[in-house]
Amino acid sequence: MHDSPLAVVAELILLLSVILVAAKVGGEISERYLKIPPVLGELCAGILISPFLLGGIHWFGGGAIFELPVGTGDGLPVEPQLFFVAQLAAIVLLFEAGLETDRDKFMKYVRPATIVASGGVILPFLMGFGATVLLGFADMGSIEGMVPALFVGAIMTATSVGITARVLADIRRLDSPEGVTVLAAAVVDDVLGIIVLAIVIGIAEEGTVTAVAIGIIFLKAVGFWLGLMVLGSLVSKYISSGVLWFKSAGGALVLALALAFIASAVAEIYFGLAMIIGAYTMGLALSGTELKHQVEDSMRAVNNFLVPIFFVVIGMQVDFTAFGAGDTSLASAIIFAVVLSIFAVISKAVGAGIPAYFVGFNRIGATRVALGMLPRGEVALIVAGIGLASGVIGQDIFGVAIVMTVFTTVLAPVFLIPAFKGGSGLKTGAENENETEIGE
Amino acid sequence: MHDSPLAVVAELILLLSVILVAAKVGGEISERYLKIPPVLGELCAGILISPFLLGGIHWFGGGAIFELPVGTGDGLPVEPQLFFVAQLAAIVLLFEAGLETDRDKFMKYVRPATIVASGGVILPFLMGFGATVLLGFADMGSIEGMVPALFVGAIMTATSVGITARVLADIRRLDSPEGVTVLAAAVVDDVLGIIVLAIVIGIAEEGTVTAVAIGIIFLKAVGFWLGLMVLGSLVSKYISSGVLWFKSAGGALVLALALAFIASAVAEIYFGLAMIIGAYTMGLALSGTELKHQVEDSMRAVNNFLVPIFFVVIGMQVDFTAFGAGDTSLASAIIFAVVLSIFAVISKAVGAGIPAYFVGFNRIGATRVALGMLPRGEVALIVAGIGLASGVIGQDIFGVAIVMTVFTTVLAPVFLIPAFKGGSGLKTGAENENETEIGE
Repeated sequence: MHDSPLAVVAELILLLSVILVAAKVGGEISERYLKIPPVLGELCAGILISPFLLGGIHWFGGGAIFELPVGTGDGLPVEPQLFFVAQLAAIVLLFEAGLETDRDKFMKYVRPATIVASGGVILPFLMGFGATVLLGFADMGSIEGMVPALFVGAIMTATSVGITARVLADIRRLDSPEGVTVLAAAVVDDVLGIIVLAIVIGIAEEGTVTAVAIGIIFLKAVGFWLGLMVLGSLVSKYISSGVLWFKSAGGALVLALALAFIASAVAEIYFGLAMIIGAYTMGLALSGTELKHQVEDSMRAVNNFLVPIFFVVIGMQVDFTAFGAGDTSLASAIIFAVVLSIFAVISKAVGAGIPAYFVGFNRIGATRVALGMLPRGEVALIVAGIGLASGVIGQDIFGVAIVMTVFTTVLAPVFLIPAFKGGSGLKTGAENENETEIGE
Repeated sequence: MHDSPLAVVAELILLLSVILVAAKVGGEISERYLKIPPVLGELCAGILISPFLLGGIHWFGGGAIFELPVGTGDGLPVEPQLFFVAQLAAIVLLFEAGLETDRDKFMKYVRPATIVASGGVILPFLMGFGATVLLGFADMGSIEGMVPALFVGAIMTATSVGITARVLADIRRLDSPEGVTVLAAAVVDDVLGIIVLAIVIGIAEEGTVTAVAIGIIFLKAVGFWLGLMVLGSLVSKYISSGVLWFKSAGGALVLALALAFIASAVAEIYFGLAMIIGAYTMGLALSGTELKHQVEDSMRAVNNFLVPIFFVVIGMQVDFTAFGAGDTSLASAIIFAVVLSIFAVISKAVGAGIPAYFVGFNRIGATRVALGMLPRGEVALIVAGIGLASGVIGQDIFGVAIVMTVFTTVLAPVFLIPAFKGGSGLKTGAENENETEIGE
């Protein structure tokens, strides 16, 4: 009976418990001692217990109980069951992110934030694309060869609203003009990044890059997004009261998650978009409803359980031994990681900082906004994970992207806290928040 | 890219959303209109959307999006990913059941409850075993042939504390002598049932049935249980404060679940016990700790999300078209279902009712206790699911067991509510609760 389905489940349950403990130990060390976001500790815990490091060691002479059967047929470095749970986690995470977005504040700051976010998407995309091409990790001769560079560009556009929000909340500057601008810009950035991702995935799938194809993909992505948003605004009240009609325990939670799952699956199956796009959009559509308040607490509990699994599993997929695999040497992979990390900082700082200067911030304020946009965090990890799982990028680029993500995410809080000390970040004559053009 | 891992996940996510919606619709109809426990609605929803019924229809002329690839290699009628999530759900459910047991009250009523529970385990086991043999669903010529009868016996021993507790809470008789006795007896019943299950699985695995083998299995089960309980009582305080040292969001929840997963996997891998035994025992061991209070709410949210998946997936595995498959005709399967349902009522009523009469209840009280022990509920479903997944019982016996479970679970509330009207259930002279021997 030891190869029965239940025995298989037992092995996976044991692995899952290792993942959960590793996540919490890593997260706690990060938060408590290193003062960096817990997500980085979870990621590093995943890298440590991966089959490529500790997980691969045959402990106590016996079989390696933490060992993952690498390459289970689908090109996945983890078992399909764990991959499935990790994907569920990503969907629930993005759904909650959408749900928790303050739609009113978002609408108020959407104009300056859009300008900041656009700069913070375009320049990182171009510099990510450029770095990949210049360092020989993409082949400009064919569309297929160009796709990795497009994907690195897409990864570079990410902004992790969670990490900046956390740091600004800690220093009580969340509702400063810079704070609100960064948060709204991070939301716009998510939307733009998601459109970029949709276009890149579309190009990877179609294998062509005509203006018409990009236009179609763009319209599909924007159409799906706007459609769900408009439909959401119009019917979200009815959906909310429909769901709240269910009185049985957990009814609202389960049905809200079902809506997120439907939007995710529809995005992937019928629109060729990433599942997280569907989940995020559905969350945003429902963010103003009574349903949101009803499910907030229980959604957080589900997230607390699932999300660490996602980041550990992402970490477990990092194979630094494959860093210089394929056509490239280890040295060139390391050079790529260093260059991409530096480019990531410069492109986001310049790309978001200069627009910030022109929408009413002085140099101090623009610097704060620029620094707030730096961390790539979970968004970049999710995009990189999609790239690896769909076979568009290999282990080498995936590893480089992880290094860049960790670097920007660790760096941001270090500089953000001192940058927020001192005077106003608004231009002279705009000291009074209500008189400035910010947020008008 | 449409066979990529992400496309597979998207299909499963869509299926999961169908499962969740079906669960909630079924549960709500049960609770609101039929006044029966929601678990039965979820089960029936699962049967309805199974690949054997609605799920198998090719909707809209296209592929059947709800269709499950029946028989995915492992002998599972559902995909390994969904099976894994369903098993996670069963583990979390039993862990919470253990955690929510009031250990003090349990200890106070353990003596009369043990007597009631023993009768309520022995007679149903024997009558379940007997019915299977008499109706020709087991072959007494070999151990292997006898195993289905043993398994049916094990399924018959179950008592669903959740359903009785729910009904008694509704009519505010939860803390009556009968109520507390039933709840404590249901707990003892779980423990005894779990030992019976361990022995049956042991026999199925070993293929022998010597007294020594049974003794070893019994000692293993009791040893694991007592070991974890004693160890739990001694170190649960330290485990609790150790876990509560973690301050990051969801730390207590995640680590408590990790403990449940470790206990489950260890029970299955190293002790040959069912995973739910490990989960339940770990829950009971931690039930008196501060940790329990810290995780209660978030554990309930996780349960609310996961548990409906389990019951729908159990329902999805019911194939009534296989009811008369194999060596048996449809007629004999139906006869088996009817006989087993009747036996289930008689055996539990007599087996638990007569001991109740002898521990201080009058005829009214003994009847109430007997009725309270009737519903097999989720416990029987979990045991039947283990039997099917491990290949010990076939689709025919699985279907019969589901019919019996649904019958007893629907019947109990119908009779329980009128039975609790009227006077005291204690013997004359024992009207004052403190003077009766109940609970001393």
